[in-house]
Amino acid sequence: MGRSEDDWIRAIAGRFPAGPRTQVGIGHDAAVVELDGRQVVLKTDVVIDGVDFRLAECGPGAAARKALAVNVSDLAAMAALPRACVVGAVLPRGVEFDLFDALAKGFADAAAELSCDVVGGDTSVADGPLVLAVAAVGEPGPYGVYTRAGGVPGDAVSVTGALGGSILGRHLTFVPRVREGQVLAARGIPHAMMDLSDGLSTDLRRLCAASGCGADVVAEWVPIHPDAHRAPTPGTPLERALNDGEDFELLVAHAPLSPGAVSELAREGVTLHRVGTLTKAPAGVRLVERGAARDLPPQGYDHLRKP
Amino acid sequence: MGRSEDDWIRAIAGRFPAGPRTQVGIGHDAAVVELDGRQVVLKTDVVIDGVDFRLAECGPGAAARKALAVNVSDLAAMAALPRACVVGAVLPRGVEFDLFDALAKGFADAAAELSCDVVGGDTSVADGPLVLAVAAVGEPGPYGVYTRAGGVPGDAVSVTGALGGSILGRHLTFVPRVREGQVLAARGIPHAMMDLSDGLSTDLRRLCAASGCGADVVAEWVPIHPDAHRAPTPGTPLERALNDGEDFELLVAHAPLSPGAVSELAREGVTLHRVGTLTKAPAGVRLVERGAARDLPPQGYDHLRKP
Repeated sequence: MGRSEDDWIRAIAGRFPAGPRTQVGIGHDAAVVELDGRQVVLKTDVVIDGVDFRLAECGPGAAARKALAVNVSDLAAMAALPRACVVGAVLPRGVEFDLFDALAKGFADAAAELSCDVVGGDTSVADGPLVLAVAAVGEPGPYGVYTRAGGVPGDAVSVTGALGGSILGRHLTFVPRVREGQVLAARGIPHAMMDLSDGLSTDLRRLCAASGCGADVVAEWVPIHPDAHRAPTPGTPLERALNDGEDFELLVAHAPLSPGAVSELAREGVTLHRVGTLTKAPAGVRLVERGAARDLPPQGYDHLRKP
Repeated sequence: MGRSEDDWIRAIAGRFPAGPRTQVGIGHDAAVVELDGRQVVLKTDVVIDGVDFRLAECGPGAAARKALAVNVSDLAAMAALPRACVVGAVLPRGVEFDLFDALAKGFADAAAELSCDVVGGDTSVADGPLVLAVAAVGEPGPYGVYTRAGGVPGDAVSVTGALGGSILGRHLTFVPRVREGQVLAARGIPHAMMDLSDGLSTDLRRLCAASGCGADVVAEWVPIHPDAHRAPTPGTPLERALNDGEDFELLVAHAPLSPGAVSELAREGVTLHRVGTLTKAPAGVRLVERGAARDLPPQGYDHLRKP
């Protein structure tokens, strides 16, 4: 049995066949379910003290914001609009009301900022770290929903911002790319789309698997965030941009765009950085550096691998 | 600051004002949100190893079933129909694939049994107990949704089954009262409805608070489950029926029914046991035993009180 998170998910996915109401199921950023004749986009993402944030360092407000924002980011990646959420909180035993109230304030502030009302929740206490399990529902935007599938060989692969070093703070303060998702969808640009939560080297492999493609990433094209030059994560700045994760930028496969089209998007506030090209599947996911191609292994965040 | 779960929830609820899409928000069994012009019922409930089940005793299949069934029970209590869910799982560090796969099988089996497709999820690993955070969406049934509000003084208070001693097994094997909720709604019977998750003494107080009523529970009327006579929980069988919790029967406030109407419901497979009467609010929630009324304190499950 493989030991990566994706191996495990792949191994169980067959247990959950899509029902008649399931338009998009397991294996995408969010699910799309038909309820009463309409598409509802549904997502859950769980964050944990000591894994996804350090409560003692960032405080409850930032933890709550991240718990909601990671879910909104997944809705954004489907070009869906966040609408409402419920919050499951597992509090460490002995928790004081002040922490609970500060978490509530953090969720209320984040809900207002991210246009995703908190409409319910469940609170438990256990002998473990703080767990915040948010589930969010959204509506498809006016231009429909997008998934990780749909990319074709020859597509450009682009990201909406610079990558790497998010641990220095952006993993908490990122703004989910809801607006960018809508702008791209309004122009019919994405063939496939997802958010970069676990690092380009890991997430691009997921988009490729869903689209039945390979991909070449061109090292020189990858936009490296200034934070990637000073982050404490392993590797070179380029490796950090490829592997750090939690950039929460959109990863988009699309027909190559003219410089004019890219400029027009930029005028609408969406910067599309091309990082590579989709290829035929057998080529796999590769990094092309100074003209030489080599395998780009998924070295982003994996819950089952990191100690 | 009060130390009960309800005190805490009350104290933060004001932070989350209902948005324009929120038709039912915090303080009911589930939320109702208007998405694209239609009502969507949304719920999350979190279960934890060592709190809500003992994994080593019950096994992963029963744990997964409970994780889903507690959510479905809340949808049932609104007279909603479960449709789809997402599962957030926090696995204990060092978890083996076999456990993960058995949980997946348990969720798949429960999804089929309970008509609630698993359409997505999120898996993490942390230094703590197994946490299963399910969020479910449902459609209103054809007869609309019901909440904890709407009971009026003079209403009968009834439950759909015998109470107490669920720890002997029913807390894992209960069948969510989806069908019963529909039968009651089809006849327009409920004024207010909720499920009994934390014990009649605690949950009735919640229904009363939402309905702006008090209630008298008549001790001799409370249907005591045979399990309540042999459960290891504190108190007499009556006290276990009032306080044990996890019965997952429906608690219904409704206009008093004729014996004929009760028989007719029974022929449709819904047994309504009357346990008391709603009163005017100042009377509070009382237990009437041999004609003498005394306060019925909320002694059901409270995450913040139990060690």
